[in-house]
Amino acid sequence: MTTDQASDTSMESIVALCRRRGFIFQSSEIYGGANGFFDYGPLGVELRRNIKDAWWKDFVQRRDDIVGLDSTIIHHPKTWEASGHVDNFTDPLVDCKVSKQRYRADQLFFAPVDVDGETIGYVSGLESEELEATLREAAERMKRKKGVRGELAPLRVRDFTEASAKEIALVPSPATGEPGSLTPPRSFNMMFETHIGALRDENSLAFLRPETAQGIFINFRNIVDTGRVKIPFGIAQVGKAFRNEINPRNFIFRSREFEQMEIEYFIAPDADWERCHREWIDAGIDWLGGIGIPRDQISEYAHPKEKLSHYSKGTVDLMYRFPFGVQELWGFAARGNYDLTQHQKFSGRSMEIFDEASKKKFIPHVIEPSVGVDRILLAALCSAYAEETVEGESRTVLRLHPRIAPVKVAVFPLVKNKPQLVKIAENLYRRVRRKYAAFQDVSGAIGRRYRRMDEIGTPFCVTVDFDTLEDGTFTLRDRDTMEQQRIREEDLFRLLEERID
Amino acid sequence: MTTDQASDTSMESIVALCRRRGFIFQSSEIYGGANGFFDYGPLGVELRRNIKDAWWKDFVQRRDDIVGLDSTIIHHPKTWEASGHVDNFTDPLVDCKVSKQRYRADQLFFAPVDVDGETIGYVSGLESEELEATLREAAERMKRKKGVRGELAPLRVRDFTEASAKEIALVPSPATGEPGSLTPPRSFNMMFETHIGALRDENSLAFLRPETAQGIFINFRNIVDTGRVKIPFGIAQVGKAFRNEINPRNFIFRSREFEQMEIEYFIAPDADWERCHREWIDAGIDWLGGIGIPRDQISEYAHPKEKLSHYSKGTVDLMYRFPFGVQELWGFAARGNYDLTQHQKFSGRSMEIFDEASKKKFIPHVIEPSVGVDRILLAALCSAYAEETVEGESRTVLRLHPRIAPVKVAVFPLVKNKPQLVKIAENLYRRVRRKYAAFQDVSGAIGRRYRRMDEIGTPFCVTVDFDTLEDGTFTLRDRDTMEQQRIREEDLFRLLEERID
Repeated sequence: MTTDQASDTSMESIVALCRRRGFIFQSSEIYGGANGFFDYGPLGVELRRNIKDAWWKDFVQRRDDIVGLDSTIIHHPKTWEASGHVDNFTDPLVDCKVSKQRYRADQLFFAPVDVDGETIGYVSGLESEELEATLREAAERMKRKKGVRGELAPLRVRDFTEASAKEIALVPSPATGEPGSLTPPRSFNMMFETHIGALRDENSLAFLRPETAQGIFINFRNIVDTGRVKIPFGIAQVGKAFRNEINPRNFIFRSREFEQMEIEYFIAPDADWERCHREWIDAGIDWLGGIGIPRDQISEYAHPKEKLSHYSKGTVDLMYRFPFGVQELWGFAARGNYDLTQHQKFSGRSMEIFDEASKKKFIPHVIEPSVGVDRILLAALCSAYAEETVEGESRTVLRLHPRIAPVKVAVFPLVKNKPQLVKIAENLYRRVRRKYAAFQDVSGAIGRRYRRMDEIGTPFCVTVDFDTLEDGTFTLRDRDTMEQQRIREEDLFRLLEERID
Repeated sequence: MTTDQASDTSMESIVALCRRRGFIFQSSEIYGGANGFFDYGPLGVELRRNIKDAWWKDFVQRRDDIVGLDSTIIHHPKTWEASGHVDNFTDPLVDCKVSKQRYRADQLFFAPVDVDGETIGYVSGLESEELEATLREAAERMKRKKGVRGELAPLRVRDFTEASAKEIALVPSPATGEPGSLTPPRSFNMMFETHIGALRDENSLAFLRPETAQGIFINFRNIVDTGRVKIPFGIAQVGKAFRNEINPRNFIFRSREFEQMEIEYFIAPDADWERCHREWIDAGIDWLGGIGIPRDQISEYAHPKEKLSHYSKGTVDLMYRFPFGVQELWGFAARGNYDLTQHQKFSGRSMEIFDEASKKKFIPHVIEPSVGVDRILLAALCSAYAEETVEGESRTVLRLHPRIAPVKVAVFPLVKNKPQLVKIAENLYRRVRRKYAAFQDVSGAIGRRYRRMDEIGTPFCVTVDFDTLEDGTFTLRDRDTMEQQRIREEDLFRLLEERID
């Protein structure tokens, strides 16, 4: 058996599988698509639900120190003034006046073409793995075209946020290849705007939340006053967020509408925040392991101190090795008491609490583990995907952890023309699906039915065969090992409970 | 024991309980609130999750003929042209030019004041239960003020959509009491608008979905092509929807951001749609019963034929007796093949399917059961809420069905100063919460702890007491009957599994 491991998996094959088997579709496909929006089909919606449920169970239901919240997507706009999003949640945007294309300045790169110490022009290109090579080629072409002899100096590539006014005029637009059409970068706020009520003016302006976290902070007082929470404690929320990305990309990795799972974990100002921060990072790694995203595909990235906001004590991201590169999966930010202090200032409501244990009054500090459902889902698919050759035949298999697999059990009668087998299979299927997502498949060669289930990640296939008529046992076939064993119904349910949780 | 039944329950007491115990808060309360938006606190979010999970389990997981979907909130805008929402999803809006107040024309009522056959003026008022009485009083006052004698004719009350141009000039504004300031009704589209990308023009215009249903229709082709669905089958979706209501009201009953649970059930054009429609209505009634909303609080309202859209074959609403009146809870619309036909027309993509069973090709017809999560939640709270007097003491109890109760089991040590009891309780609590939402409460008189659990609807309280030390059994106290019995741990788990599902 040969296996293509996850690291070699291409995004194309994952996107194709998602489309082919109804996990994920481009939104509004029949109307040419909505760029940066994705719909989850019958299997995708179950995978997504399972990830969210597992997270909620482990971080809310099974802990004493965390309570849940579900705040609205549209808040009072003052929320976003206090949080700093109105002023600072921006991307630098560059227009090409000729082509009407728009670019993120930090994704548009340029370099002077220096030959024997003289700049003969500029080359430019968009962020990609081949950027350096492409720019080098363009520089060589320019040299030839201008008939310049001499040695081309190594390219000093910078992004467009660093371009001087003089350079802005000289850098060619990636769309036209000619200089003179790019505008200086300007700030573009990434929050989607809307208006509440029938009037459209600054008083009716509202935003779609770009993160779920602020909904937690503005409800902090409510939860402290109505619940019986004690420091340290957390508030968790799962919900949609929206960012008006200029360049949504990498499938569901960076989309305009996505879902977050965030916790604000409140601690005393004099608590050992570094230890708490570390515990949360470790909890994140453990949890990922528990849904099938292995430790060795995860790395940690500590944001350099000089790049942190003034209030931030430290941020560590768990990075995942996606096919398109190592990218952020789960952020763990130690944010001090910045957010609560801002909301206290803007609302005039005190965010101080009295801690019975220490007999102190304070605005708590916070550790913020923040992860996107869609990113976890994509990482889980990447880790699970494999193409294998088994005895000369190829199979595509999703080795999804049973906890998140969209279908847990498939039930087959060995053949469809034996009513006895079909009936037993039908009844077993009905008993299983009361508790677990199940699928029944009656027709086709049994090997083909197994392959169809492998491809959607169904961990367990149960076949009713002639031995069943003898002794009441079934064939249990394991997705990963492809081994088969006889199993009794009560043992099947025990296995499911153990593996699925 | 005396009980105030649900019918006598006031909205005030339910809203107060929701606020006090952390079920539901006004959104952005610290900033003065966002009108028509509500946040769900620690208990509310669990109740909400349980309702959605029960619905999904019963209508998707446990059926063979329904698959799930999760489409985005923002679609390609053409979706809403095809569906008719851009042109027709409007409310008639009236402005008072003096006060700047805005009214829905169909909620603003007026009547001429006729005395002895002569109209001496007009009176007006907003929709309320006391409308008739208020208008009558105003008419009497006008008669007295104008010194008119004679008999006041019975008032012929109409809403403002029926006002003639002449009447519009004469009807007093409810804000000022003076005529002349109300504008003629104009159409106000209730979809929230936003823009995708950095440009703001008609090409970037997009809408927040006002219903989840259209996300199903535009994915119909995808699901037919990638799944193995056979007519009849349904597609189900749970998700947020947004309506820019002019007058959000009745707490979470009519808010601007809410959540829907919708199914489109596709049938052959020559199928017995009336029978299918009836089956869905009955399924809805059964399901409500199964989560604790009793049959006798539900009535049916069949929309009169003349008020239906041209394509509609019939709509029946299940109505619930809310404290503010009998109102729509769950709609069941037989929509023919209107939506798919419209999307075929606007997208150019065929919506026809080939039905293997009948060997026919057709665009299927649809039955649409559509219900709001927030309305179900409010109905469940109203049905569950009771204030009782028990042996001279009052208690507030939420008789929520165990399936949806936010906390299923509370575990108490009888007293907190017996470490043995506390330890056993702690361990039992940990075992319970692995499977069920549980709560542990150590301090306070046991009666007080029971009352606190009654108020949030916890069906089962388990107390570890001195008998536990003898025989390992616990006291199980039932929320509704307040009866206590001894129970063994394995029987507790069996009971939970039976009652909670």
